[in-house]
Amino acid sequence: MADEIKKYGTRVLLTYGGGSIKRIGLYQEVVDILKDNDIPFWELSGIEPNPRIDSVREGIRIIRENNIDFILAVGGGSTIDCSKAIAAGYYYDGDPWDLVIKKAEVVDALPLGTILTLAATGSEMDRGAVISNLETKQKLSFDHISMAPKFSILDPTYTFTVPKVQTAAGIADIMSHTFENYFTLNDGAYLQDRFAEAILKTCIKYGKIAFEEPENYEARANIMWASSWAINGLLSYGKDSQWSVHPIEHELSAFYDITHGIGLAILTPAWMEYVLDDERVDKFVEYGVNVWDIDRNIDKYEIAKLAIQKTREFFKSLEIPMSLREVGIKEEDLEKMAKAAIDNNDGKKIGNFKPLDYEDVLNIYKKAY
Amino acid sequence: MADEIKKYGTRVLLTYGGGSIKRIGLYQEVVDILKDNDIPFWELSGIEPNPRIDSVREGIRIIRENNIDFILAVGGGSTIDCSKAIAAGYYYDGDPWDLVIKKAEVVDALPLGTILTLAATGSEMDRGAVISNLETKQKLSFDHISMAPKFSILDPTYTFTVPKVQTAAGIADIMSHTFENYFTLNDGAYLQDRFAEAILKTCIKYGKIAFEEPENYEARANIMWASSWAINGLLSYGKDSQWSVHPIEHELSAFYDITHGIGLAILTPAWMEYVLDDERVDKFVEYGVNVWDIDRNIDKYEIAKLAIQKTREFFKSLEIPMSLREVGIKEEDLEKMAKAAIDNNDGKKIGNFKPLDYEDVLNIYKKAY
Repeated sequence: MADEIKKYGTRVLLTYGGGSIKRIGLYQEVVDILKDNDIPFWELSGIEPNPRIDSVREGIRIIRENNIDFILAVGGGSTIDCSKAIAAGYYYDGDPWDLVIKKAEVVDALPLGTILTLAATGSEMDRGAVISNLETKQKLSFDHISMAPKFSILDPTYTFTVPKVQTAAGIADIMSHTFENYFTLNDGAYLQDRFAEAILKTCIKYGKIAFEEPENYEARANIMWASSWAINGLLSYGKDSQWSVHPIEHELSAFYDITHGIGLAILTPAWMEYVLDDERVDKFVEYGVNVWDIDRNIDKYEIAKLAIQKTREFFKSLEIPMSLREVGIKEEDLEKMAKAAIDNNDGKKIGNFKPLDYEDVLNIYKKAY
Repeated sequence: MADEIKKYGTRVLLTYGGGSIKRIGLYQEVVDILKDNDIPFWELSGIEPNPRIDSVREGIRIIRENNIDFILAVGGGSTIDCSKAIAAGYYYDGDPWDLVIKKAEVVDALPLGTILTLAATGSEMDRGAVISNLETKQKLSFDHISMAPKFSILDPTYTFTVPKVQTAAGIADIMSHTFENYFTLNDGAYLQDRFAEAILKTCIKYGKIAFEEPENYEARANIMWASSWAINGLLSYGKDSQWSVHPIEHELSAFYDITHGIGLAILTPAWMEYVLDDERVDKFVEYGVNVWDIDRNIDKYEIAKLAIQKTREFFKSLEIPMSLREVGIKEEDLEKMAKAAIDNNDGKKIGNFKPLDYEDVLNIYKKAY
C-alpha cells in the first residue's frame, strides 16, 4: 500500500466513517503502515452514510491547510464518494456543491486510493460520487475521469463484520446497478446482458450465504468482486442505459436519509411491475429464464410476474422491509418527492427503458407504499 | 486516432499482414490520417499468420534505423503479436528470440496502438504475444505489462470481409481462451465462471450468424467484444488457470504452420473427452447445463458427453475439419510433437485441470487424429 501511495503523493488525508474500521483493527493497520513509511497524514473521520456536502467542505479545508496531496479512503461507498468530491473540490475555488449541481465543471482531482470495507456502491472502481445536501434536500451524483481511484484494495475479510442490514442493502445496491444497465430495449448488447446475468446470479447465490454466514470467504469475495463489475462500465459499454430506479430512490434518501440500498430494494419490484407491458415483457422473460431459471415454455407474462415475485422474495429473505411505509416515509410526502425527482432530472422524464414522468414516479411510490 | 498516437510518439512504424487492409480501404484511411497530421511513418508489411521471429527482427531494424518511437499495428492477432515483440525487442540488445524463450527478460517496450481487423486472439487488450521460429520448430508465448497496447480501435465493420475459415478459426480461438480459464477445479470463482459462460453463449449464438452473414453488425460486434474479454484477465482474476489445450496446439502450428484456431477446435473436444472422469464431471455438467441448456436432471455423464458432443458439432457447423488427419498432419509426427509440447513446458506436466504428461498429450493427439 505504501508503495502505491508513494507513486502519487507524499502527504495523506486519511478518510473514514464511524468506528468500524477501528473495531476490526484496520485503522491501526493502516496507521502503522503510514508511520513505518514516514508518510505524514491527517484525518477526516465521521463521514456519514449518504455523505454530506459539509464533510466535503471540511475535507477540502484540511487538505488546503496542510498541503496534502493524496487521499486514502478506508470504508464503503460513502467514505469513497465523499473523498472523490473532496479530491475534485480541491481544484475548485468556489463551494464544492457547485460541482455536484453542475453549476461548475470538474477539471481535475487529487489522487485517491481506497481500501474497501463494504461491497455495495462500486465506487472503488468508477468515476462517480453521490453527495447529499440536507439543507436543500438534494442527493445528486456527479462524475469525472480524474475522480476514479488510482488503486483500490479489495480484501473480502474486511467485510466479515459488516452488519446484516448493511450486507443486505449492499447486495440490493449491486443488483440495482445491474438492473439499471440490463433493462434496455433491443440494443443488441447480448454479451453485456449475459455479463449482467452473471452478476445477478452471483448476488442471488451468495447474498443469502453472506447474510447467514458473515465470515464465509467465498460468499464475501464473490459479492465484493460483483460490486465493482456491476458499475465500472462492463455492463454499459455499447448500451444507452439511462437509469430509472436510482434517480427515484435518491429522493427517499434526500428527504428521509434512509439507507440507499434499502430504498432500491423497496422500489425495484414496484418499478418492474409498473413498467411491465407488451413492449417490455420479452426483457422480463429473458431475466426470468436466465437469472431465475424459470421454465421458458410457460406464458410470457407468467414468467415475467414470477421473476418479479422472486426478486421481491429474495429481498425479503434478506430481511429488508419491503414497503416505504415500513421505513417511516409519510404518505403526504410522496408527491413532493416525485416532483423533486423530476426537478433533479432537469424536468425531463426519468430513464429510457420506459421513460417516467411525474405521474409515473408518483404511481411507483404509491405501489411501493 | 492521430490524437491518441501523438500522446505517445512522433514517428510511426505501421505494421500489417497481407493485402486485406488494402482491399477494404483501411490502409488508405490510416495513411491519410497519418499524412494529414504530419506524422512520418515507415512500414513493415507481410507479417504472416503464426508470426515469425524474422519479421520481429526486421521490424526492430527499421525502428532503429529511423528513430521510430511508436508502433501502429493494423490487423489481427498475428500482426499485433509481432508488433508487441518488436516493441519489446527494441529495448534488448541481443536477438529478440532470447525474450521469447525467456533467456532474457523484457524490461520495457515501445508504445503500441492497434486497429483490429479480426476477432480472435484478444491480443488487442492483453500483454502477451506468441511468436514462431520455423528453424527450431517452436511456437512460444511471452508477455510483459509494457507490451499491452496503449489503445485499440475495435470497429466491427472492419471484420465484415474476413473469410469464412478465418471467422470460424477466430471463434474457436475465443472459445478456447474461455475454456482454458473456465475449466479449473473448485476454486470458488463463481462470478468469473458465469462471465466465461456469457462469452461462450455469445460465441455460440453469434458465431453461426457471423459465419453465414458476414456483414451482420450485431454478430460481428458481439464476437469482437467477446474476443477481448475472453483473455484480458476478466475470466482469470482470482483463478489459478494453467492452460492445457493451447500448449498442445502450439506444436501443430510449430510443426505444420496450421491455423491456430483450427488446431484448437480439433483438439478441444478430444481433450474434453480424455480428461472427463469422476473428479471433473461436475465441471462438465456446469458447462452443459449453463452453456448448452442441457436438462440438469439427466445423468451427470450423459450431460457431460452431450456437452462435448455439442461442442464438436458446433465447430463442425462452422465447417472446421475436425481431425488432425484432415489438416494434413502425419501420424508419425505425433510422438515428436508430444515430446516437444512437454519440452517447451520445461519438461513439466501441462495444465492443472488435469495435468498432462507425455503419454496424455500423445493420447489426445491420437484421439483427435
